[in-house]
Amino acid sequence: MYLETINSPADVKKLSVEQMNELCGEIRQTLLKKLSAHGGHFGPNFGIVEATVALHYVFNSPEDKIVFDVSHQSYVHKMLTGRKDAFLNPALYDEVSGYSEVKESPHDFFTIGHTSTSVSLAGGLVKGRDLQGGTGNVIAVIGDGSLSGGEALEGLDFAAELGTNFIIVVNDNQMSIAENHGGLYANLKALRQSKGKEPLNLFRAMGLDYTYVDEGNNVEALIEAFQKVKDIDHPIVVHINTLKGKGYAPAEKDKEQWHYCAPFDPEATLRAIGETQKERQEIPEDYAAQTAEYLIKRMREDPRIVAIASGTPAPTGFLPERRARAGKQFVDVGIAEEHAVALASGIAAAGAKPVYGVLSTFIQRSYDQLSQDLCINNNPALLLVYWGSLSSMNDVTHTCFFDIPLICNIPNMVYLAPTCKEEYFAMLEWGLQEREHPVAIRVPFGKMTYSDEPVETDYSQLNRYKVAHRGSRVAVLGLGSFFGLGQAVCALLKEKAGIDATLINPRYITGVDKKLLASLEVDHQLVVTLEDGVIDGGFGEKIARHYGTSDMKVLVYGAKKEFADRYNVKEFLRQNRLTDGQIAEDIMKILGL
Amino acid sequence: MYLETINSPADVKKLSVEQMNELCGEIRQTLLKKLSAHGGHFGPNFGIVEATVALHYVFNSPEDKIVFDVSHQSYVHKMLTGRKDAFLNPALYDEVSGYSEVKESPHDFFTIGHTSTSVSLAGGLVKGRDLQGGTGNVIAVIGDGSLSGGEALEGLDFAAELGTNFIIVVNDNQMSIAENHGGLYANLKALRQSKGKEPLNLFRAMGLDYTYVDEGNNVEALIEAFQKVKDIDHPIVVHINTLKGKGYAPAEKDKEQWHYCAPFDPEATLRAIGETQKERQEIPEDYAAQTAEYLIKRMREDPRIVAIASGTPAPTGFLPERRARAGKQFVDVGIAEEHAVALASGIAAAGAKPVYGVLSTFIQRSYDQLSQDLCINNNPALLLVYWGSLSSMNDVTHTCFFDIPLICNIPNMVYLAPTCKEEYFAMLEWGLQEREHPVAIRVPFGKMTYSDEPVETDYSQLNRYKVAHRGSRVAVLGLGSFFGLGQAVCALLKEKAGIDATLINPRYITGVDKKLLASLEVDHQLVVTLEDGVIDGGFGEKIARHYGTSDMKVLVYGAKKEFADRYNVKEFLRQNRLTDGQIAEDIMKILGL
Repeated sequence: MYLETINSPADVKKLSVEQMNELCGEIRQTLLKKLSAHGGHFGPNFGIVEATVALHYVFNSPEDKIVFDVSHQSYVHKMLTGRKDAFLNPALYDEVSGYSEVKESPHDFFTIGHTSTSVSLAGGLVKGRDLQGGTGNVIAVIGDGSLSGGEALEGLDFAAELGTNFIIVVNDNQMSIAENHGGLYANLKALRQSKGKEPLNLFRAMGLDYTYVDEGNNVEALIEAFQKVKDIDHPIVVHINTLKGKGYAPAEKDKEQWHYCAPFDPEATLRAIGETQKERQEIPEDYAAQTAEYLIKRMREDPRIVAIASGTPAPTGFLPERRARAGKQFVDVGIAEEHAVALASGIAAAGAKPVYGVLSTFIQRSYDQLSQDLCINNNPALLLVYWGSLSSMNDVTHTCFFDIPLICNIPNMVYLAPTCKEEYFAMLEWGLQEREHPVAIRVPFGKMTYSDEPVETDYSQLNRYKVAHRGSRVAVLGLGSFFGLGQAVCALLKEKAGIDATLINPRYITGVDKKLLASLEVDHQLVVTLEDGVIDGGFGEKIARHYGTSDMKVLVYGAKKEFADRYNVKEFLRQNRLTDGQIAEDIMKILGL
Repeated sequence: MYLETINSPADVKKLSVEQMNELCGEIRQTLLKKLSAHGGHFGPNFGIVEATVALHYVFNSPEDKIVFDVSHQSYVHKMLTGRKDAFLNPALYDEVSGYSEVKESPHDFFTIGHTSTSVSLAGGLVKGRDLQGGTGNVIAVIGDGSLSGGEALEGLDFAAELGTNFIIVVNDNQMSIAENHGGLYANLKALRQSKGKEPLNLFRAMGLDYTYVDEGNNVEALIEAFQKVKDIDHPIVVHINTLKGKGYAPAEKDKEQWHYCAPFDPEATLRAIGETQKERQEIPEDYAAQTAEYLIKRMREDPRIVAIASGTPAPTGFLPERRARAGKQFVDVGIAEEHAVALASGIAAAGAKPVYGVLSTFIQRSYDQLSQDLCINNNPALLLVYWGSLSSMNDVTHTCFFDIPLICNIPNMVYLAPTCKEEYFAMLEWGLQEREHPVAIRVPFGKMTYSDEPVETDYSQLNRYKVAHRGSRVAVLGLGSFFGLGQAVCALLKEKAGIDATLINPRYITGVDKKLLASLEVDHQLVVTLEDGVIDGGFGEKIARHYGTSDMKVLVYGAKKEFADRYNVKEFLRQNRLTDGQIAEDIMKILGL
């Protein structure tokens, strides 16, 4: 097996084209074995095998610097740069992250997870090299839907001005996570169809030189192209035509589903190709599916409702079949979160009702649009923020726990934190009807929870917290998905210290219920806030400030401000003293019990 | 005077071309009179007079909806839509804002101040119209450097997919605030030179139809072009070639200086054209000029230092002459703040030292890049955040008081708040040397202040606050530009209540000096925090949280969370109880004095 002999890119350079072709096969087998056992980004890596081998054959990493956009397609790069064992040896599968990672290897230059960043970051390497009279090629590898992101387009536009060695490989696999959206992809198609000869050329229009490789999964063709541009004295785009998922039939067939995979049985999956998918009778009991179905039902009643996604429709419940059912009342803008928020504001200004579903980690890409385009204009768009939780994605670039400070400090925004299915859908329906303010809902993460308690249908009188149980001495504010933790803490306080604690569901992240908080001062000594996110800039600090000049003690719980990577959720919660036992213990200590 | 008869666009439609040409002359005279007395955006409005008249002649606002990007060029639009008196009558000059404003007129659809938003916002109006089976044209007017912003490029890319009536007027005045940057502007030039016939066409490459108007300051030509695209059934770009500052010779000559003007004497200014500018002997005693000079000096000693601007070089001290002196060690990326941050991260990763100067209101456009591209990678770029203050710009879209919550809650970032010139330059020099962390400095706003106190040169041991005076009972934490307010409060406390208050200069916005705060508990009852920004998510709340379970009382001062527009600074500070007298009064009340 050639792969076993590859300890660095130098070992790739020793191979003949034929041997590299064999290596590519081994790489795919290795990927299939690991990803079927472990899960991971499937299609992007299967599509970029040959290009990665050819890059390392032609260029001299790390003197030549390759920067992968999103970097979920850097598995092959890792295999070729001293990290093959983390793919070959199941015991070592978790030794490498799923993204490029500076700490792992001198061949990785940035920790990257969000899209559309590579051209700008690599442009910085170019400028830094030139300032210091350095040498070596800088190569950005971008594609897989990332081109439509504003940062990528800003970077491409600026690249021309660098006027020096800079190679931008556009890995055109014709897909984003879902299908591509945006006019520029029609231009890529025209370029593919004309084998790069189409005179109308987005990249040239941005001032860049351009070359095209039709066989983007052919090592020999790629080597030839890369050799031609190596050591070039100006910026150039190398547009390569690749097949996402190449080499595994199910992934070639359903590219969206195979963008990322959970563990699976490769043989059974292969056999199942062509079988008619059984129609699902029931809507799965999860927030995304139920939300999308609810919205589609409401769309039929109200033509003004339109769901918006920005490149990640599936996690918001809009799988292809539902997108088809929603028709013109569903819009995927592609990876373009800034545009999504502004578009939503415009749609709301026109009197219709946009519902933008977005993951917590990606709403970060729209702060200025939330503030300027949406909230200053106070347009009643509805945002559904998914996966906002410490228990959600745990790659450092994809953690979902900064959305509370990001959103809740913007004036005019109403950010709601439902605690269970019933409350969530009541808030969702209210959000659909609301005409006064932009509303965001932090969709609970994980399994649905339920409640028999009646829920309100009208949330227009802002910042009213709900007292779930009125006790005394201690009041626990369990925000959104941490309401259950609050219940557990209260139960422990009762059990261990006989304290009948007050339990409150704040519901509104964006404001303080001053009247209720004042009423607690009569017979409470301690208020405890629990939020499923980072503490700094968040909800609890506002409660602490409110009580700053009173005698009330305040204990604020959440994650401390740090970038956490691939953490074990249970351990992470424990480190942040976020278990019911730890919290109850802290409370009793403060009360002197 | 025709202008006096224009009460709505209907009155424009009554005029002949000849009369409209006269109207244009009147508009320019009116603008000259108002802006020379009042100040405002000069060049952008002088350049777009004819286009605005033609738009209102051809289209039927507000049924047809015109959305101006940045909207600092909407003065003429305001004159033609019932707001002429705010330009003709000096007593009413302040009756209208300098931007499009929903509250002023049904002809304004959004409150807009940041760039690059119009295509997405107008795209929302298009989608909202179509969902409801509405009619009417939607027109976005973009230009003046805004095209290079990521949101605009995302919006253009998406516009093609709308597939219905949408007119995007690209007002190509060949300028940003400073000169244009980015490869796409070379394409605009080629399009101008070929009278729109150049086959390489950025807009077509993004899937949009395209037409060109060479005489963008000719009413008749514009009317003809707009009539052709009126009621079109698909998205189209109308590229118009205009002259920024047209009609006032000094503004045509020095477009950057005349982008915005303070009040001036129009006759004297005209006479002065062609006179050799006297060489300035001294560097003005302001933070921007002194910073740029300092950086240029340091660039000569260290080729790795590079200053970055994103379309607003002048407010960061980089006037054209200094840009020329800095040479390759100065980069203006154009309006592309996301790219600027990522570029800085890349340059730092390459071992050089980027210094990105940016206004507080615009750093908002880069949250995800600050978090992902810069801080996760912990690259030692240096950011200089200018104008961060409640006393800075007061248009709602340009307020500069959200940068503290935006920046200070991002892990790894070190955000420093110097209190005077000496401390600022010590921090700046330290920031240039720092290799461990990204550093941002909140450059003090307004007149320089000075101090005789020795300042530290090394800030690498993080989160150490400096005790300026050790007293007892009350401790005042005066952050950055509010340190002077802290001094005044302490003086008042001494004078009025005989309290010898402790005064602290926190220096570090991003962290809490736990040891120092703990030491205050011995002989202090009250800690007061003062920050020159919004309270929510900011510095003071962290201090309140720190003391949450202690007996220390905490009073947090700053602006309350709201969008404030065109406020009187003194009045605004008073409303937020931010005068020394109010704060001293509050303190004495809490202490029962």
